[in-house]
Amino acid sequence: MQDVQNQIDNRNIPIDQVGVKDLTYPIVLLDRENEVQKTVASINMYVNLPHDFRGTHMSRFVEILNQHHHKLQIDSLDEVLLKMKRRLKAEEAHIEVFFPYFLEKSAPVSEAKSMMKYECSFTGNLREDLDFVLGVKVPVNTLCPCSKEISESGAHNQRSIISIKVRYNELIWIEELIEIAEQAASSPVYSLLKREDEKYVTEAAYDNPKFVEDVVRNLALTLNKDDRVYWYKVESENFESIHNHNAYALIEKDKRENPDDCL
Amino acid sequence: MQDVQNQIDNRNIPIDQVGVKDLTYPIVLLDRENEVQKTVASINMYVNLPHDFRGTHMSRFVEILNQHHHKLQIDSLDEVLLKMKRRLKAEEAHIEVFFPYFLEKSAPVSEAKSMMKYECSFTGNLREDLDFVLGVKVPVNTLCPCSKEISESGAHNQRSIISIKVRYNELIWIEELIEIAEQAASSPVYSLLKREDEKYVTEAAYDNPKFVEDVVRNLALTLNKDDRVYWYKVESENFESIHNHNAYALIEKDKRENPDDCL
Amino acid sequence: MQDVQNQIDNRNIPIDQVGVKDLTYPIVLLDRENEVQKTVASINMYVNLPHDFRGTHMSRFVEILNQHHHKLQIDSLDEVLLKMKRRLKAEEAHIEVFFPYFLEKSAPVSEAKSMMKYECSFTGNLREDLDFVLGVKVPVNTLCPCSKEISESGAHNQRSIISIKVRYNELIWIEELIEIAEQAASSPVYSLLKREDEKYVTEAAYDNPKFVEDVVRNLALTLNKDDRVYWYKVESENFESIHNHNAYALIEKDKRENPDDCL
Amino acid sequence: MQDVQNQIDNRNIPIDQVGVKDLTYPIVLLDRENEVQKTVASINMYVNLPHDFRGTHMSRFVEILNQHHHKLQIDSLDEVLLKMKRRLKAEEAHIEVFFPYFLEKSAPVSEAKSMMKYECSFTGNLREDLDFVLGVKVPVNTLCPCSKEISESGAHNQRSIISIKVRYNELIWIEELIEIAEQAASSPVYSLLKREDEKYVTEAAYDNPKFVEDVVRNLALTLNKDDRVYWYKVESENFESIHNHNAYALIEKDKRENPDDCL
Repeated sequence: MQDVQNQIDNRNIPIDQVGVKDLTYPIVLLDRENEVQKTVASINMYVNLPHDFRGTHMSRFVEILNQHHHKLQIDSLDEVLLKMKRRLKAEEAHIEVFFPYFLEKSAPVSEAKSMMKYECSFTGNLREDLDFVLGVKVPVNTLCPCSKEISESGAHNQRSIISIKVRYNELIWIEELIEIAEQAASSPVYSLLKREDEKYVTEAAYDNPKFVEDVVRNLALTLNKDDRVYWYKVESENFESIHNHNAYALIEKDKRENPDDCL
Repeated sequence: MQDVQNQIDNRNIPIDQVGVKDLTYPIVLLDRENEVQKTVASINMYVNLPHDFRGTHMSRFVEILNQHHHKLQIDSLDEVLLKMKRRLKAEEAHIEVFFPYFLEKSAPVSEAKSMMKYECSFTGNLREDLDFVLGVKVPVNTLCPCSKEISESGAHNQRSIISIKVRYNELIWIEELIEIAEQAASSPVYSLLKREDEKYVTEAAYDNPKFVEDVVRNLALTLNKDDRVYWYKVESENFESIHNHNAYALIEKDKRENPDDCL
Repeated sequence: MQDVQNQIDNRNIPIDQVGVKDLTYPIVLLDRENEVQKTVASINMYVNLPHDFRGTHMSRFVEILNQHHHKLQIDSLDEVLLKMKRRLKAEEAHIEVFFPYFLEKSAPVSEAKSMMKYECSFTGNLREDLDFVLGVKVPVNTLCPCSKEISESGAHNQRSIISIKVRYNELIWIEELIEIAEQAASSPVYSLLKREDEKYVTEAAYDNPKFVEDVVRNLALTLNKDDRVYWYKVESENFESIHNHNAYALIEKDKRENPDDCL
Repeated sequence: MQDVQNQIDNRNIPIDQVGVKDLTYPIVLLDRENEVQKTVASINMYVNLPHDFRGTHMSRFVEILNQHHHKLQIDSLDEVLLKMKRRLKAEEAHIEVFFPYFLEKSAPVSEAKSMMKYECSFTGNLREDLDFVLGVKVPVNTLCPCSKEISESGAHNQRSIISIKVRYNELIWIEELIEIAEQAASSPVYSLLKREDEKYVTEAAYDNPKFVEDVVRNLALTLNKDDRVYWYKVESENFESIHNHNAYALIEKDKRENPDDCL
């Protein structure tokens, strides 16, 4: 059978990214307690395509994933990317892996345990060097300082989603980023709260009001001091309980003098 | 050209619903102030198909919509459904129209005006008689009575979505259902609130705590007393600010003794 | 602390469903090969609330889930529902579990293996008797018979999603429903196809054209003959490659003479 | 009342973007036929916040939008952004407007008319100079050249979404970008096709096979030759009819020698 993809292309136009998108696959990760966590990922895999080839070979992306999804650690991503470059004869390979990650969490007073889900992501890009970004999204509670200040009693509060993305030199656990996010907000949120916990969380949030601006600044303060992190992007989106739209803030920072170096 | 759809089908299996789904179309509605409102609808149109025909004629659904989308009132839906039955030689026709509907709303103290969006729906079914359901989804604020009662200060509150669906004998405006929803909650929400309004809304919600159960019961109380309404389904979903999941409640009621009659 | 939820309610309005919605939790299932499959579920759990209680106790839903998510089989759902009735003093309990389920699948010629994801659901309701519905959504290829018939060459085809929901008397595996769905379409779809497989699938679909109406009728034929199934609802939604909207068909059938009996 | 937002902030951390997100608002646009088109937009509005202020004033974003949504042309966006900078005392203002846009389209043979929806976007950023990006998403049909070549008859084809984003020096209409997208694919798609049109579209696509790589290269060829365009990003995502995942390709190009200049 003819290999149409291998035909010479005369349009003289290289393609930045070509590949498979929104492939859902079961994956296995390590978690901090050194046990494996099985979860489900949505995966995008792309390579560049030089100007003189008509098409890439889409089935090879899935073949490579097949060899690795049983142990898709952060530190095996470079191996996946290297195989993508080789098998697809590309100069650059790119992978994005989005997955829910679960932690057991204890309620603040009763210590009742339950599972909390965090949407996480690995993004890897390999040309000569590997560029890797770790991402987490953490649901939290934010209570409005202005509403508290101007009102006789009460204050509007809401669920917010904090997003942290980092590039780093030394291992950072997903669990650490979740803790950083929860400490930047008015309060963590939980799957299971008994009455004494609900009292605690309500009062803790009321005593700890945070604008969306405060949240991203607190995240920035913590990550500025963390020498393992050389780049970050932090966002908070507050699903305002008094509006039908959201409040949003973003800070992005590259600590490197020369952005081609790692610190 | 052969009309494959018109072939005789020997499988002897009638089809309950067949047609087009997720067709996005511009539509024009009347609003209570008697002016037209142009908006954008996602539309599903189905008919039944008798056991002896192989296929329906999908293009006719879109042709009928073309004739009516410039004036798609509640009271013209029966005409659309009648055309569907005739053109597609069906015994039953069904249409679902989902659209954002905008109202100008004044902030409670400053009276600053802004537009609020409400997701609404028309659902019509015509066999012999027309069955019509009007639906609205209204974002509101709910403040937790338990959290208020047990906490020294503050109370968790959040954005909630109230859904009301009604069957009725006499005209009910979308605007009336929105008001009923807002009165059942701790407070309405707004697109634009100045500082004095934020104080008002915060205090109003704190003085008016509502469980998700209270919300649907208040909706039911109001609709029980409204003689125009002979059937309703009310729901509230609270995007809990202390959890990453939602609280939910539903009441459905048919006031008719014999569900084949209208009251 | 006061138990606000336990207060007497004088509005005299019972609530049909109240509980937690969109709780994401890791779950463990059995698969046909008798090995466990770990996946991630979105879960809704509701009970009814008698007219005289003000609120339900939301944390108990999560406590019950905590005891069962490590082994959430179809045949343990009644135990979960029974606990919900008891712990929440309700007459009726309801659970909905939505989860991706993975099967290893072989390409039709090369037999190259890859994982395919199917969105599945368990829905259980317990008043006196247990009512249980098993659901699967299966992506397939459909090729239009009319387009094939009237065109010199080629025929439009597209990805479609078949949905099957069944009530049954004797065990049916998710895997069986997936096979039934794939046989009703023009061709199955795969995560990994080599060139010889792509040729096979293209030709198989071209030789096996199916309207959306044909798909649901073929599903109905198969399920009519399956004595284990006493109720089904089958749907197909074709993401038409020549339109920006979808073609849709539905058949629902209850085989019981008296719908209060199981066959 | 105290202006908490105006408090001095000592954390010494400037914020890149802060504002309102996912605000749905009715807007009015010009279309090429010089008539107005009323539609519904999802809007994000952000400014930067210097390190020494604690918070921005969220209500002012909505006040500015209120003054402009009745005529939100491309060429009035700079006015909106200028007001955002002034009212919020910011050095940089940013707006993103996402909206469905409708065109009347004639079927290729019968010339039957119907409305087609295209998801469009305006993105504006104003520091000293205005940076503006126009975006459209165009559903099309793509037919696989490899599948056609290797198969006895037929070829898999599917709905694809082409995305074009451009920066330009001279006015480009949304309508022009839609035409460019449709010409790069195997065939346009339509809301209404009679039988003779379906034959035409099926055969046209079969005679015009395109890989996802061909689509983005054809887009690039056209935009390379268009002197009004000085930057573009083109993407195609094909909802493969033989897989449950998508094929994807991207080309981004800046034609300027010095990216701080406009051509």
